[in-house]
Amino acid sequence: MFGLIGKMRSQPGKRDALIDILLASSAEIPGCLSYVIARDETDEDAIWITEVWDGEESHQASLLLPEVQEAIGKARPLIAGFDSHVRTLPVGGTGLPG
Amino acid sequence: MFGLIGKMRSQPGKRDALIDILLASSAEIPGCLSYVIARDETDEDAIWITEVWDGEESHQASLLLPEVQEAIGKARPLIAGFDSHVRTLPVGGTGLPG
Repeated sequence: MFGLIGKMRSQPGKRDALIDILLASSAEIPGCLSYVIARDETDEDAIWITEVWDGEESHQASLLLPEVQEAIGKARPLIAGFDSHVRTLPVGGTGLPG
Repeated sequence: MFGLIGKMRSQPGKRDALIDILLASSAEIPGCLSYVIARDETDEDAIWITEVWDGEESHQASLLLPEVQEAIGKARPLIAGFDSHVRTLPVGGTGLPG
């Protein structure tokens, strides 16, 4: 498995609009085992995205899907930047398939 | 929903032993929607734990369960510290029930 934990920052006041785009694009992507979008509790423009994929190849392939490309295009103007981006190797837990 | 994203550091060389304890204790806890344990890709003593609960009350209650208390007791000697611990408000995504 392959994982990503990222903190994204929206343009001021645009967090919910950005979340809506992320939610719409995250359904049923091949190889995606978990993709959770969360508001930071205290930082009002920050979004956390935690991802688990069956492998890094699936994540790379997802970036080329037309619906993902379209979402990236819509999201880009609302993104101010990325505060952190960590690559992980998930080993298991609760809520993963199989 | 309530979320936690934490980076834990094991005593040197004890990461896999610590992961085994975490994996054994994470199955089927009431209100736990997702609990993913991951190795950091580059930092050999670091573990990431990303959690989604139906509410903060469920997370608090879980800490009092006998099996969780037992796991905490086993894990504590293997933990060197916590590098970060973020509270989040998950809004949705892939891989969550419902």
